[in-house]
Amino acid sequence: MKQVIGVIGGTGKLGAALARRWLQAGLQVQIGSRDVSKAADVAGKLNAELGTSAGFGSNAEVADGSDLIVVTVPFAAQAATLEDIRQQVQGKIVVDTTVPLMPPKVMRVQLPPEGSAALKAQQVLGEGVRLVSAFHSVAAHRLATDEQIRCDVMVFGDDKAARAEVVKLADAARLRGIHAGALVNSVAAEALTSILIFVNKTYTVDGAGIEFTGELTAPAE
Amino acid sequence: MKQVIGVIGGTGKLGAALARRWLQAGLQVQIGSRDVSKAADVAGKLNAELGTSAGFGSNAEVADGSDLIVVTVPFAAQAATLEDIRQQVQGKIVVDTTVPLMPPKVMRVQLPPEGSAALKAQQVLGEGVRLVSAFHSVAAHRLATDEQIRCDVMVFGDDKAARAEVVKLADAARLRGIHAGALVNSVAAEALTSILIFVNKTYTVDGAGIEFTGELTAPAE
Repeated sequence: MKQVIGVIGGTGKLGAALARRWLQAGLQVQIGSRDVSKAADVAGKLNAELGTSAGFGSNAEVADGSDLIVVTVPFAAQAATLEDIRQQVQGKIVVDTTVPLMPPKVMRVQLPPEGSAALKAQQVLGEGVRLVSAFHSVAAHRLATDEQIRCDVMVFGDDKAARAEVVKLADAARLRGIHAGALVNSVAAEALTSILIFVNKTYTVDGAGIEFTGELTAPAE
Repeated sequence: MKQVIGVIGGTGKLGAALARRWLQAGLQVQIGSRDVSKAADVAGKLNAELGTSAGFGSNAEVADGSDLIVVTVPFAAQAATLEDIRQQVQGKIVVDTTVPLMPPKVMRVQLPPEGSAALKAQQVLGEGVRLVSAFHSVAAHRLATDEQIRCDVMVFGDDKAARAEVVKLADAARLRGIHAGALVNSVAAEALTSILIFVNKTYTVDGAGIEFTGELTAPAE
């Protein structure tokens, strides 16, 4: 049976854009939201545009019915959202995309007491989850288009096999997934988001990203 | 009179490589070291190779005789080195390049209690110094060559004019300096170093770097 990807907070900019790209790549996707009617709306629009069959439901329903769960909510909603799905995601791969931006000073790195949003997610979900952290640096409004985006996706996680799955998911979204080490390393990518916002403003660019230089082909086994 | 750049810990790989590129660009450089004979040796070799007139001295002497001070020492030596030059650098621009790598786990981000090496430097040097943080991501052994390196230099600092000077210094070293915001943002570049080391090992590359994507030309004023 085909793997089902559940996008929690899938009605937000990042979630909907990832879902769209994964649907385009032929993956099976479900859209979750606190507001089921919004989830239905987003899934309906994606299916109408792409001729796909994305499902939808509440966050907990989607987490329950999915094999791999991607959480795309603002930092302020992270803890409550993870609490909502904690039971349903035990034993599964969960991809946390949360960036600890604390408005209004979003150009300033402000890390949570846990050290990073990824470590906070680990605390909430517990050790029974195969937690991976990724998709911090990509500009959602550009991801929502069909353009080829020049932005690498750093993928962090202590479970190497789970991390490899998420590197593939980045590739499926027509980005480049990069193995970037342990979950604790996620702080680098999370903090980088404030720098990208600063760079966008300072250099008047729209959605700056980062790329690794060097011949990064297949990882050594 | 020409601005004098003092490289503290200038006998190390990063310091010597930066000094060499700045001398090649026609800048006035002094090499500082705890061990004056080592500093003399490095300055002598650079001068013999390049036909320049780099000076040398103890770290405190070089800090005293320079207008802009660049500190390039390992994390374990950072605090003691900064204490050594604290008096001499008051009122001057100090560029801290320290990355909080804590061997043996250098592929794992480990941040100091102060939050970052840059914030630790600020605590040691006090508010009377125009502190800038930069040059974290570049591989020293590649910087030591004449090659064109594809690696952007994120430059952090709360003093915008000081930051702009250091962006120019990165450019003078034939890198690309990028305004990256407040000093507190330095944690992103510092943490990224562990990820670059991880990427080098995982993908078997030599000195991966990062570049910002997008049309980053002149910063908006």
